[in-house]
Amino acid sequence: MDRPAGFSAIEWSAQGLRLLDQRRLPQAEEYLLLTEAGQVAQAIRDLVVRGAPAIGITAAYGVVLSAQRHFPAAPSDWHSRVEADMAILAAARPTAVNLVWAIERMRDCLQQPTADPGQLLAVAERIHEDDRTANYRMGAYGAALIPAGDSVLTHCNTGTLATGGYGTALGVIRSAWAAGKLRDVYAGETRPWLQGARLTAWELVRDGIPVRLITDSAASFLMQRGKVQWVITGADRVTANGDVINKIGTYQLAVACRHHGVRMMVVAPLSTIDLSVAEGRQVVIEERPASEILELAGQPVAAAGAGAWNPVFDVTPAELVDCLVTEAGVIESPDTGRLRAFCENAGKSPLPQSSAGSR
Amino acid sequence: MDRPAGFSAIEWSAQGLRLLDQRRLPQAEEYLLLTEAGQVAQAIRDLVVRGAPAIGITAAYGVVLSAQRHFPAAPSDWHSRVEADMAILAAARPTAVNLVWAIERMRDCLQQPTADPGQLLAVAERIHEDDRTANYRMGAYGAALIPAGDSVLTHCNTGTLATGGYGTALGVIRSAWAAGKLRDVYAGETRPWLQGARLTAWELVRDGIPVRLITDSAASFLMQRGKVQWVITGADRVTANGDVINKIGTYQLAVACRHHGVRMMVVAPLSTIDLSVAEGRQVVIEERPASEILELAGQPVAAAGAGAWNPVFDVTPAELVDCLVTEAGVIESPDTGRLRAFCENAGKSPLPQSSAGSR
Repeated sequence: MDRPAGFSAIEWSAQGLRLLDQRRLPQAEEYLLLTEAGQVAQAIRDLVVRGAPAIGITAAYGVVLSAQRHFPAAPSDWHSRVEADMAILAAARPTAVNLVWAIERMRDCLQQPTADPGQLLAVAERIHEDDRTANYRMGAYGAALIPAGDSVLTHCNTGTLATGGYGTALGVIRSAWAAGKLRDVYAGETRPWLQGARLTAWELVRDGIPVRLITDSAASFLMQRGKVQWVITGADRVTANGDVINKIGTYQLAVACRHHGVRMMVVAPLSTIDLSVAEGRQVVIEERPASEILELAGQPVAAAGAGAWNPVFDVTPAELVDCLVTEAGVIESPDTGRLRAFCENAGKSPLPQSSAGSR
Repeated sequence: MDRPAGFSAIEWSAQGLRLLDQRRLPQAEEYLLLTEAGQVAQAIRDLVVRGAPAIGITAAYGVVLSAQRHFPAAPSDWHSRVEADMAILAAARPTAVNLVWAIERMRDCLQQPTADPGQLLAVAERIHEDDRTANYRMGAYGAALIPAGDSVLTHCNTGTLATGGYGTALGVIRSAWAAGKLRDVYAGETRPWLQGARLTAWELVRDGIPVRLITDSAASFLMQRGKVQWVITGADRVTANGDVINKIGTYQLAVACRHHGVRMMVVAPLSTIDLSVAEGRQVVIEERPASEILELAGQPVAAAGAGAWNPVFDVTPAELVDCLVTEAGVIESPDTGRLRAFCENAGKSPLPQSSAGSR
């Protein structure tokens, strides 16, 4: 069962950037070929690709596409044109900090005197590869925390599809399963976009890991019946005090965990930690169209005239997080002091205040 | 805004029993005409009609259809044939106690020496009418608890569609709205069957009451942001200690309420209280097919090979219920002693132990 997930959702080639269209899964495995930065921003907005680390990697390749276009066409002016594309890419989705983080790394490269598209590509590929490596490390650190025989519930999709490969929370589940530790794996279907049903189940079935889906509202009953000992999720942003911004429903799971004595594990690379924002309530929470709730597969499900409130993420206070797993190790009961000390130790520097979208 | 919901989901006529097919709402308002008890049991199983009080009323009319058929055909033997149909009706769904309660009332009538189909019809119509009256009373009792300016979240559908008319939890919301007390009304979409999106929104839009749907997993974030002060739900069964068996997700809402200091109101007629069962964990929780989670509108949504756990109800311990509203008044912080004293006061007798399906 220890075979790796044999596919990649983000592929660079001489023709451009190939993205597995996650909107079509699991019915169809289709790749889109993107050749311009604007197409990449659109793909991020349209959820062709989602998941905080995957969005960051995709945006980095988008910067490469921008440079490949503008470097030969406007040698004296290409920097400013790439900067304009970077602004468009950075604005594609507001909540995941990895997007801003990846673009900052591309900007650092762009600002070198000798910068060219080839160097930018090398940085993007490094971001991609570093993320995959970080995931294997997080998988090992997280799995080590889980006693043999435990069962887990995960939320949304945090696997190969959401990252550079292997996954964050799903990477921990893969590693724990490979180590023979897990009894049962449950996945919340994750309304409204059903990432759990459509994506996580698809990845686990591919890997031969048995998975049972539940409606998101059944999680507390699952815990009451003693069927899981862990909830394991990813994060779109972790603020300086340890608050976790993640897929809507994560906070409700954390509340349920605390009520039942179930452990809450958040798995996220250092690039997801945003030391420039003090706490979760300062982060812009993306709200998507009401139609995502009012319609199913393009057909109205609710009566005409009904409204909807559709926040895509929520804020889990740090005090509900039992452990935060990163590629540099595990932070138990994260708070401002522990997180800052941990990041200093790991050599992580905060993002510049201006670019982190903190409000 | 005080106009009543101008429709009936359950209608008796000389031709038989007409049921509004709730599977088709809100796209189509179609009635099915049923003329045999077996059809009625099938309609209950297939969710043509759902909601604990509505199931009880429907089953009572099903007994009338049985009597109308067997009384003229087999005058010496009709009792035993009606008894056989009652057993089929009682087994149509396992969790709602109103079904058993209504059939017990029909059996009481059947066992009278002078029983005939006309008398049985009178009892069924009385059950129907009493439920509607009880709902108006619960609406008044519940609304009186809500301070002006509060906002509420409800779950599943507990309106005219789920009852003899007006509704239990939705009746309280109707009455509170009519009294000008409510700021906002939110409804959880209620996966997997989407009763909130399909049915509750339809009823509220009909009544001109603005409603905002949320995914079930967004309830805790809604509370964290201070957007609701009450969760108001119905019940499929209340056990002797005050535990509430209701639509999956109710328990998760109750846990979230307690965490946030949001008040949890359960609205149910006395016929839903089952004094013959000591506590919630003794009640059979219906599990429905995995396909309800794995498919959407008949199309697979999850990868082939994925499983699902699909309990339809859950158990909310009495200690998480702030108030239980019945047609005889309000029980604050229900427990075994308070519930028993209240029921004795209201003249409610427990169901016979054998028929309450307690295990």
